[in-house]
Amino acid sequence: MSTSEPRRALNFDNINPHVKAAQYAVRGELAVRSEEYRAKLAKGEGKELPFDKIIAANIGNPQQLDQKPITFFRQVASLLENPLLLEHEDVLVNSLGYKSDVIARAQKLLKEVKSVGAYSQSQGAPAIRESVAAFIERRDGYPASPADVYLSNGASSGVNTLLHVICAKPETGVLVPIPQYPLYTATLAVLNARCVPYYLEESRAWGTDLKGIRDSYDQAIAAGTDVKAIAVINPGNPTGASLAAADIKAVLQFAAEKKLVVLADEVYQTNVFIGEFISFKKALRDLQKEAPGTYDDIELASLHSVSKGMVGECGHRGGYFELIGFDPQVVAEIYKFISIQLCPPVLGQCIVEVMVNPPKEGEPSYELYRKEYDGIFNGLKERAYALFDAFKQMEGVECQTPAGSMYLFPTITLPPKAIAQAEKEGRKPDEFYCFRMLDATGICVVAGSGFGQKEGTLHFRTTFLAPGTEWTGRIVQFHREFMEEFGE
Amino acid sequence: MSTSEPRRALNFDNINPHVKAAQYAVRGELAVRSEEYRAKLAKGEGKELPFDKIIAANIGNPQQLDQKPITFFRQVASLLENPLLLEHEDVLVNSLGYKSDVIARAQKLLKEVKSVGAYSQSQGAPAIRESVAAFIERRDGYPASPADVYLSNGASSGVNTLLHVICAKPETGVLVPIPQYPLYTATLAVLNARCVPYYLEESRAWGTDLKGIRDSYDQAIAAGTDVKAIAVINPGNPTGASLAAADIKAVLQFAAEKKLVVLADEVYQTNVFIGEFISFKKALRDLQKEAPGTYDDIELASLHSVSKGMVGECGHRGGYFELIGFDPQVVAEIYKFISIQLCPPVLGQCIVEVMVNPPKEGEPSYELYRKEYDGIFNGLKERAYALFDAFKQMEGVECQTPAGSMYLFPTITLPPKAIAQAEKEGRKPDEFYCFRMLDATGICVVAGSGFGQKEGTLHFRTTFLAPGTEWTGRIVQFHREFMEEFGE
Repeated sequence: MSTSEPRRALNFDNINPHVKAAQYAVRGELAVRSEEYRAKLAKGEGKELPFDKIIAANIGNPQQLDQKPITFFRQVASLLENPLLLEHEDVLVNSLGYKSDVIARAQKLLKEVKSVGAYSQSQGAPAIRESVAAFIERRDGYPASPADVYLSNGASSGVNTLLHVICAKPETGVLVPIPQYPLYTATLAVLNARCVPYYLEESRAWGTDLKGIRDSYDQAIAAGTDVKAIAVINPGNPTGASLAAADIKAVLQFAAEKKLVVLADEVYQTNVFIGEFISFKKALRDLQKEAPGTYDDIELASLHSVSKGMVGECGHRGGYFELIGFDPQVVAEIYKFISIQLCPPVLGQCIVEVMVNPPKEGEPSYELYRKEYDGIFNGLKERAYALFDAFKQMEGVECQTPAGSMYLFPTITLPPKAIAQAEKEGRKPDEFYCFRMLDATGICVVAGSGFGQKEGTLHFRTTFLAPGTEWTGRIVQFHREFMEEFGE
Repeated sequence: MSTSEPRRALNFDNINPHVKAAQYAVRGELAVRSEEYRAKLAKGEGKELPFDKIIAANIGNPQQLDQKPITFFRQVASLLENPLLLEHEDVLVNSLGYKSDVIARAQKLLKEVKSVGAYSQSQGAPAIRESVAAFIERRDGYPASPADVYLSNGASSGVNTLLHVICAKPETGVLVPIPQYPLYTATLAVLNARCVPYYLEESRAWGTDLKGIRDSYDQAIAAGTDVKAIAVINPGNPTGASLAAADIKAVLQFAAEKKLVVLADEVYQTNVFIGEFISFKKALRDLQKEAPGTYDDIELASLHSVSKGMVGECGHRGGYFELIGFDPQVVAEIYKFISIQLCPPVLGQCIVEVMVNPPKEGEPSYELYRKEYDGIFNGLKERAYALFDAFKQMEGVECQTPAGSMYLFPTITLPPKAIAQAEKEGRKPDEFYCFRMLDATGICVVAGSGFGQKEGTLHFRTTFLAPGTEWTGRIVQFHREFMEEFGE
């Protein structure tokens, strides 16, 4: 049988198989369909749809869902973009309500970066890295050095950088929590390295389970995997968990025992409703103090971002990672790798600076900053609990108490008829459920299978960013109708 | 012989060998030393240095070298950052000199993106892609579709994306011009794919040489390389060349013959001093019109950026690529790949919009825009020729007439004693020369070996962005002293 010569250089069969293997459901088919609905509604079409707007609960995108930016941050940014405004200080102050600390901050940052239109050092502008180091010191009570801070393009590019350096061969493995934010599995797939999954304990508020981690590690080693790192997301995405001190300590001790790099994804560090956030850096320094000499060689990379928290500036793509305990020759390769892409967006770097160094008590912009920050925090917490309460009313749905981050990740139990219908349509059951929800309500969530889940369980992830409670009611109603349609 | 157990998970010997193999001299050791000098001088130290400032001529970073941003762009950006300013239109207009078209543009962009702090679609905000498509249509006289436009994080991330999808296996090869901007070789190294070098013709104003391309291709095929693409940088980096229509056509015909993806790096498209810029897209459409049916299947990716031209907003990391003729299944994989990093910086996307859709004649901001744009263009051209004239005075230095981009790439002929001294210090001769120049003048350029050059030739790349002519004189003086020191 002859096959016809392909017409093009590239086709599905000859492109990079590792790119093809990557999966990233957060912006997958469900999200694409929701965008199609949105475009239709925006054009005044879609009268046949049973909803009149789209709620993008699939992604932590606060300002798309009406979260207002912090005024101080954006006033500073406006001056960075147009420094000529600084020649009109009287107008800024008297007519536009800019406070003196806004002007001073813009002047300080401009002195450092010269222009937000100029490349910075690849690692990020030195004075901004100094602010980050000072923030880490205040947060943890331990020293931090600007030389160890790497500004990044959101936290995602930081994860990409670190995994690029770690993944040396197809046998390299990285322990990844399941469920997880799929950046990790997708990047490991692109790098043709192995994801070594360890399951979080849903029954224990999605905490880490050391026995489970140990078993996964042992199995991977037995399968010939060279396990080099463990990723932890705290507070959890998609789980909404906030890890206990003992869990963090156990992970660090395990990493020391097995000589693993710890990748601590801490982008939700200010989104904590229960207990307090403990950074891996602080926990590591505490451990080192408790048992001098024992934990000196742990390699920790801790990541943070302007995208989440009460900042919510994800469109600005700002973030950083701090490297602790890495070999200088490895650090040099990390530097070279990031330099190929020149530098992170300089305005995003400046947003990092104002995030880690916000107005202090007594400063002119403090009061408004505090009010805005607390308002966002309380609003998120209220909405998390309202959604949690709604889930309690839903048959076959169980959800852990909201503890942190921007998500809830309820378990759903679907009737056999629904599962059969999903199979008939060639979809996973939780995907089938989420498509039905989107088609019925305009609310876009992500199926649990996009994050990984224990065999035989089903979930979905939703943000609790959307304002109001009307949409929560729509989920409850949809679920009732779904269960009526497919129940016995 | 026993070796001691390594203390850490990662060391130079066990990290990703492909990251280690990548070389990126633009921000390499010379740049690092120049930053050390800069930091020293900034602290008021370094009295022993024979210069009092650093001129970073190693990288096209216009605003670091005092190029002023275009006022219209930055006024719009300031309103995007602080939309509350739009509530004070009278103050903006009467006290701050903002024109009505600035306000209208900011309103239009905000309507599209909602907030520059929100994620956009992974491909970029739809209305901004529409502006890009309209720009391409005006530029080329052929249709363009927003669906084919992908906004990116500078052009660099676009190259990274495209090479990720193309490079399927270690035998995959990409034809890369030599000398080249080292993004290409560095990314191919990280992807463990093969760079297939083809030499540009220095004697013919650094034009492409079809025979050379063909020979390189044939040699690569003979060596078992699966050549999938050809990269062309026009106007040239580091060469400063501006390709002739015949050269472009020849590359396209060759690509059609051998079924190669064409990667057209056109970020310097407005930096043209001799002749006019012809886009690969236009040349392709012309060819398709001349010989219907013959060139229908060519896959072309054309890249552009806000970093260069008269815009110079590299710190904002904005760019785009247009895909022509790609298989839809391949396009879907490109979309998925970029979605893993969520979206390019949204303000960078907005800078792309104002770049491709600047004030038009008759609009309130036009006059100033035109004046600023022409001023930058003429300044660059003048400085290019001033530097070119300076090189003429230098013994053993030969340079092609400046034609485009932001660089000159002169040949240098060094005395045997200098070459011997370089070898003694463990450096390539051109690197040795560049370090000497930096140490003597504070001017940082990049050695030709960082871009690739024909065996037995030596070059350096310098931008002509730095204002004034005093620094040019310093290069001439340094060169004279260098030749005196090492001459016979």
